[in-house]
Amino acid sequence: MKKSKFTSSIIIIGNEVLSGRTKDINTSALALWLNSIGIIVKEVRTIPDEELKIIETVNECRKKFNYVFTTGGIGPTHDDITAISISKAFKLDYDFHKEAFSILEKYYKPGEFTEGRQKMAKMPTTANLILNPASGAPGFYVENVFCLPGVPSILQSMLGGLKNVLVGGEPIKSKTLNLLTVESEIAKSLSIVQSQNDDVEIGSYPFFKAGKIGVSIVLRSTDEKKINRCKEQINNFLKEKKIKILKDN
Amino acid sequence: MKKSKFTSSIIIIGNEVLSGRTKDINTSALALWLNSIGIIVKEVRTIPDEELKIIETVNECRKKFNYVFTTGGIGPTHDDITAISISKAFKLDYDFHKEAFSILEKYYKPGEFTEGRQKMAKMPTTANLILNPASGAPGFYVENVFCLPGVPSILQSMLGGLKNVLVGGEPIKSKTLNLLTVESEIAKSLSIVQSQNDDVEIGSYPFFKAGKIGVSIVLRSTDEKKINRCKEQINNFLKEKKIKILKDN
Repeated sequence: MKKSKFTSSIIIIGNEVLSGRTKDINTSALALWLNSIGIIVKEVRTIPDEELKIIETVNECRKKFNYVFTTGGIGPTHDDITAISISKAFKLDYDFHKEAFSILEKYYKPGEFTEGRQKMAKMPTTANLILNPASGAPGFYVENVFCLPGVPSILQSMLGGLKNVLVGGEPIKSKTLNLLTVESEIAKSLSIVQSQNDDVEIGSYPFFKAGKIGVSIVLRSTDEKKINRCKEQINNFLKEKKIKILKDN
Repeated sequence: MKKSKFTSSIIIIGNEVLSGRTKDINTSALALWLNSIGIIVKEVRTIPDEELKIIETVNECRKKFNYVFTTGGIGPTHDDITAISISKAFKLDYDFHKEAFSILEKYYKPGEFTEGRQKMAKMPTTANLILNPASGAPGFYVENVFCLPGVPSILQSMLGGLKNVLVGGEPIKSKTLNLLTVESEIAKSLSIVQSQNDDVEIGSYPFFKAGKIGVSIVLRSTDEKKINRCKEQINNFLKEKKIKILKDN
């Protein structure tokens, strides 16, 4: 695929995902959104709520990629240690962030901004805030590391506020062809099309649903014309092989 | 939490997950199953279908953890490069695996074991096979690296065959308390309970569903008695605070 200049990694912080209890859906939401603003996700790491592991992973990823997004661990309980870990990773003071404190103070009714809730205003004191229209408590970013909450609906409500902060490239477009066939039937022809279309990433994924066995072919590129040219070539060999297209979008 | 001696990492190989198009559900299925046989998942990495990246990630993880499980990239198409990458990671010959070839030859009707399908028999020639009751094509393992397919139903059908190969510890048990409260209300008390119960991992996760706002408290340990003792302490402070338990399992 034509490489996007802007790369990122996502770090999912959470024992609940590693234990299998919770299925991560933040990767998918974040990646789709990042692709739409021309930032490609090159790696996702899911790691435990362990300070040293967070520090080490963040420090490795922030050097490798243009952007790093963490999810999880910014709530008020004992297992929420993302903010202190990020402070240590960047060697910054961890204390009440004035603006965050003031936002939360206004958000809660008088008397309800308890000690427990005040913890959510603690972070690197010089961090930039990411506003949270859904539930008050802001996320934050330091340099190229953006810390978002783990609750999917809240995370998604905060993405809009990041749009002006992130510099991306051309949006990554994709088209999908769902075929009534098996992978081995089209493997050779598809491999020839891929070799002739360097700038389009062609993925092939078997599916089994609603009693049907099929293959989804996904074409991705920043250049829609190149996707369409590639799709024509695929359509040609599908006609020859008399393979039925279930859905084309 | 009382540390399990047996650690593992999962490597999800697939551009379709990094692009956000596909939500990964293999991590959850694999982790729950591994926990049940006393193997803990310490890290998950999702990486692209790129040979060098696969080699580098596998070689890093197989040294760090007792077991490594890869998912995806063992089908017949051009983007299925897990088998050749693993061969290179271990510096082993990549060619037709005699037993795998013979299994696939018997699986397909005469004349249907095409060139495309034969690719699925190519892997490190000395690998051990992981039988596939769902769709014929076997996975394989080399030393402590186990290569499984990306299609969830097929992956899950193959786990039974691994049970006798993997050496695990005591199963990791868990209990969940769903509470009608917010995290900040219980943060302090929960933190005290955690400090008194080193061998139990206590996780706190806010939820928003069916119009209700609540918190799930998850207790995990290999020792059920310790989980129960911890739960009692939590029940005590819940009573004091008059917090309602929605579900207890």
